[in-house]
Amino acid sequence: MKKFEEKTTHTEKIYDGNVVKLQVDDVTLPDGNTSKRELIKHSGAVGIIPVTKDNKIVFVEQYRKPLEKSLVEIPAGKLEKEEEPVVTARRELEEETGYTVTEPMEFITSFYTSPGFADEIMYLYLAENLEPMENPAAGDEDEFIELIELTLEEAKQYAQELRIHDAKTNYAILYLEMLERM
Amino acid sequence: MKKFEEKTTHTEKIYDGNVVKLQVDDVTLPDGNTSKRELIKHSGAVGIIPVTKDNKIVFVEQYRKPLEKSLVEIPAGKLEKEEEPVVTARRELEEETGYTVTEPMEFITSFYTSPGFADEIMYLYLAENLEPMENPAAGDEDEFIELIELTLEEAKQYAQELRIHDAKTNYAILYLEMLERM
Repeated sequence: MKKFEEKTTHTEKIYDGNVVKLQVDDVTLPDGNTSKRELIKHSGAVGIIPVTKDNKIVFVEQYRKPLEKSLVEIPAGKLEKEEEPVVTARRELEEETGYTVTEPMEFITSFYTSPGFADEIMYLYLAENLEPMENPAAGDEDEFIELIELTLEEAKQYAQELRIHDAKTNYAILYLEMLERM
Repeated sequence: MKKFEEKTTHTEKIYDGNVVKLQVDDVTLPDGNTSKRELIKHSGAVGIIPVTKDNKIVFVEQYRKPLEKSLVEIPAGKLEKEEEPVVTARRELEEETGYTVTEPMEFITSFYTSPGFADEIMYLYLAENLEPMENPAAGDEDEFIELIELTLEEAKQYAQELRIHDAKTNYAILYLEMLERM
């Protein structure tokens, strides 16, 4: 859908980093006026809802520099170039939790995290019947994480306390709650 | 929580815009090694789930420049400095939809949209029993939006078709579905 399309007349590239790129576009609006749009480019990401055989959800706690605090989240990671999201999802599950799955993961949904200024898309998967790995691969060397296994009730309590407090993880909890009621 | 805190040793300010700021921090990791963190600063935002007296949800369709397409979303907007989120929520509801509420809006939840690189937080409200306004205030002059009122079933169909495809709106639909089952 291209309703109310904003045509780019000029692009200023501001920054090209490892995680984000930033550019500012001059645009022509539907009424002919002009404006500027600040745009963050991101490669996209996956999130995985890992559920153990005894029905615990596996979360990771890590420091989030933009917030200057740590959060408890479902495992997640950036898409590598040309990589299928489901492949990224399995790798991130294994690296971050040391669990794997033999059955395929179930695709749940995808969404843009912040479409007003960023093109980041998040693909969410459900990984059930987790199997512990014998030799899990190491994750990113600048990533420090701690595993936390919680029941759904405990996870809802963490969300109440704002220790769980991000879009993909809040969505995951609501999704699991819905599954329970179906 | 400060688990695995990353201490900033240097901050490079890259960009200071109307919507986002970008900085790159040099950090010392828990093991003493160093890394860089690309950080987007954002003022935060609200999203409103507006429900009419005949149980339709009011969405807005608008062009999202980062995606180069239009999306159907719940009404939303950026927090102004020092403004309480519930005040922003009422203003955005009125400006974007021409509806208001006499009862207080119900706070549902908040979440960080993309805590890996951005500090944006989203506050979500439920606005029920909408009343049409006689003289709705005008919205931002560079914002072109179209109202779409949908039943929950129709909204789920829009999400299937990826016309609804962002975190706050997908969350809103799941939330309303949950309410129906309670």
